[in-house]
Amino acid sequence: MAKTNIRTPFFVFNPKSYLFGEGLLELVREADTLAEEFPISIFVTAPFADIAAVSSNSKNIIVTAQHLDGIYPDKGMGHVLPESLYEAGARAVFLNHAEKPLTLNGLAKAISRAAELEIITIVCADSIAEAKAITMLNPDIVLCEPSELIGTGKTSDESYVKETIEAVKSLNPNVLVMQAAGISTADDVYRTILLQADGVGCTSGIVKAKDPKKMLRDMVQATVKASNKNNK
Amino acid sequence: MAKTNIRTPFFVFNPKSYLFGEGLLELVREADTLAEEFPISIFVTAPFADIAAVSSNSKNIIVTAQHLDGIYPDKGMGHVLPESLYEAGARAVFLNHAEKPLTLNGLAKAISRAAELEIITIVCADSIAEAKAITMLNPDIVLCEPSELIGTGKTSDESYVKETIEAVKSLNPNVLVMQAAGISTADDVYRTILLQADGVGCTSGIVKAKDPKKMLRDMVQATVKASNKNNK
Amino acid sequence: MAKTNIRTPFFVFNPKSYLFGEGLLELVREADTLAEEFPISIFVTAPFADIAAVSSNSKNIIVTAQHLDGIYPDKGMGHVLPESLYEAGARAVFLNHAEKPLTLNGLAKAISRAAELEIITIVCADSIAEAKAITMLNPDIVLCEPSELIGTGKTSDESYVKETIEAVKSLNPNVLVMQAAGISTADDVYRTILLQADGVGCTSGIVKAKDPKKMLRDMVQATVKASNKNNK
Amino acid sequence: MAKTNIRTPFFVFNPKSYLFGEGLLELVREADTLAEEFPISIFVTAPFADIAAVSSNSKNIIVTAQHLDGIYPDKGMGHVLPESLYEAGARAVFLNHAEKPLTLNGLAKAISRAAELEIITIVCADSIAEAKAITMLNPDIVLCEPSELIGTGKTSDESYVKETIEAVKSLNPNVLVMQAAGISTADDVYRTILLQADGVGCTSGIVKAKDPKKMLRDMVQATVKASNKNNK
Repeated sequence: MAKTNIRTPFFVFNPKSYLFGEGLLELVREADTLAEEFPISIFVTAPFADIAAVSSNSKNIIVTAQHLDGIYPDKGMGHVLPESLYEAGARAVFLNHAEKPLTLNGLAKAISRAAELEIITIVCADSIAEAKAITMLNPDIVLCEPSELIGTGKTSDESYVKETIEAVKSLNPNVLVMQAAGISTADDVYRTILLQADGVGCTSGIVKAKDPKKMLRDMVQATVKASNKNNK
Repeated sequence: MAKTNIRTPFFVFNPKSYLFGEGLLELVREADTLAEEFPISIFVTAPFADIAAVSSNSKNIIVTAQHLDGIYPDKGMGHVLPESLYEAGARAVFLNHAEKPLTLNGLAKAISRAAELEIITIVCADSIAEAKAITMLNPDIVLCEPSELIGTGKTSDESYVKETIEAVKSLNPNVLVMQAAGISTADDVYRTILLQADGVGCTSGIVKAKDPKKMLRDMVQATVKASNKNNK
Repeated sequence: MAKTNIRTPFFVFNPKSYLFGEGLLELVREADTLAEEFPISIFVTAPFADIAAVSSNSKNIIVTAQHLDGIYPDKGMGHVLPESLYEAGARAVFLNHAEKPLTLNGLAKAISRAAELEIITIVCADSIAEAKAITMLNPDIVLCEPSELIGTGKTSDESYVKETIEAVKSLNPNVLVMQAAGISTADDVYRTILLQADGVGCTSGIVKAKDPKKMLRDMVQATVKASNKNNK
Repeated sequence: MAKTNIRTPFFVFNPKSYLFGEGLLELVREADTLAEEFPISIFVTAPFADIAAVSSNSKNIIVTAQHLDGIYPDKGMGHVLPESLYEAGARAVFLNHAEKPLTLNGLAKAISRAAELEIITIVCADSIAEAKAITMLNPDIVLCEPSELIGTGKTSDESYVKETIEAVKSLNPNVLVMQAAGISTADDVYRTILLQADGVGCTSGIVKAKDPKKMLRDMVQATVKASNKNNK
């Protein structure tokens, strides 16, 4: 596991491949302001070649890659070299997303290489059995998101959220559990954090909003508000 | 095909995943000086997250990605977005390297997307039949490199070089033919260009040389010298 | 290329993974009767482990595998060994189907291994550029089926059919061109053969028909009828 | 998990793709005799298209596929349909072999589909962390075989064998633990069973032996002998 402190509940803005270049940087700057203003960790993902620019245009967010390969500097070609990501400023990475599934062996190696460089791993699980399997590989964060809900605007139901948290924490209480399936409004964020998720994330709810910056702010505020209520 | 002018015979320095960060930039600066000094195109590859830095530290080389995926900006996750590469400064890309083989359909889409952005495509072929198949997909450059020779220091023999050039050019005379298999000395470069290759490339011959900068310079000079002899 | 004589226009019944065991054998027996009755080649595909039973329950059809891997008898594990298919009775194989895309190198090797065993190769192409690329690899049959039409009941339009035939034959007149996209009625079969396709194929139009045996017979008869009209 | 009774310690003869057709059947018949003679389960793997013949030429062995895909009967093409394997006689399957690695999601689905059909799953793990992850997916047997030892003739050392057994059993005592890395002599078999492995397996030690039938018999006898010693 990475040693970087994660301030929970955290928020992940994952624009996937919808944004790049200047369009991405606009939202990065807003996220960076929010990460300074509020006492939670904010992760922002970027396409590989945008990571350096995202990093040099922010100070407070955790710059996050969409994937990395568990390779060492060597003859690899066309793969995502962990050292290259780290030097460009990435401090977290998604692994095993439904759009980029990894072999079990590839996932084990990727988590291990990320840990060596203290890059935080956010590993996607499609079911409770997968969440438990992933937990045995020592990730930092398990993202529980049944792939059939991705992009649907339909959130995981309350029992699924509670069951996944229980499944992961009973095996390793240090692993954080994130929920993302179908979160598309600030209210979805609020309700999910109340269910004790360690973090939430969103893609299309933000990038397809009429005012993406405002939606990003609303969601971050909903995270903080739910956290305050949990802590009372 | 991309419209960027390629000054032949070209030289490709492909450090694969051996180099990144400052170690890569040192050789990039040397390659940039050589590209100003000599009348040939010099391509330098970089890991995805290094492309922005390579681009901002050079003016004369053609910044080259190790791979791209034939996707459009959308929900893709963990893939290599062509627009992200382009904005970061990439103007060429390797495709279908033995370390990152593509499906025929994926290769067709990748070539097509690169062409839309005027990114030069260097497509690897493992045999003469593959070189001919690739030529039908309209790449800019076909790299003929039998995978069993990669990294061996053993070059393709003269007849293989001539046969591949003939096979590709007879189908489409506008496609350039590059040779790379096992090129590890300046003399290998010289002999290969004399055989009428449009370009050559090298990895371990440079990165594992005692003095990589000197080896890079020696190989570029060998390219120019052979070209001059060819043009007499 | 395989030396087996293919009597054109041929018909391919490809039940994919819809059928297996006794359910598959029922239609195999009907296809076998039709192949004896009519002067055309009839190919029937089967899941790998059904090939032996399909072969021992037929005499006239060309038993066809859904895929093979271009490997030799050796330490391979989990792959589809060409020799195993051949011994079980397979004499043709689909390659590069949209559901099982192959790398360019894997496809080249698979075609080459099939040719060594005289197994007929039916190679799927998603576009005209791909059809041309595949033709350079020396398959027996190119199946031109834009993947966006598979299973839709919408057939490729007339110009697409003519263009693909022209594209392939102009490169190698010995390669047969098959069409399959969206063929779901005997009339679709009839019209496609009139456009000079060397063969046609169908999946869901047969397996989802009220009376699959009757639909199979109707389609084979439509193939013969169109062929007779073409030959007048 | 499958309900088929496995008589431990079991022995797995895995000829991979070295054998097929009549050459495979010769050893299958010997294994079948041994499985009648001795009170242990003997698994024999076969290429997919050989499974029906192996099944009809044996009564006592557990016929084992080299892989299956976690799909249902449907439009799948080129994949290994579980129902097809079952109908042909397979009652066990290898999954996630180093030669055929599966995505975590694909592995979870394959184990689940096999369990529905009561096909015993033998799932390969490359490390202790992977063995633990796999155990969370409810396989019948975990095969602990560091991929760097496959085919080397070098066995896993005693501490590795003990550690993997402990790691798996502490999570789920019903999961059986098999060892295979580098087992090439009857003595290797004997020593590994003495270390309390639930089962062992061998490939090249048998297929490359001067007298494969004799080696198979020697290894099965060594399994029984070690078992008797353990039970004293």
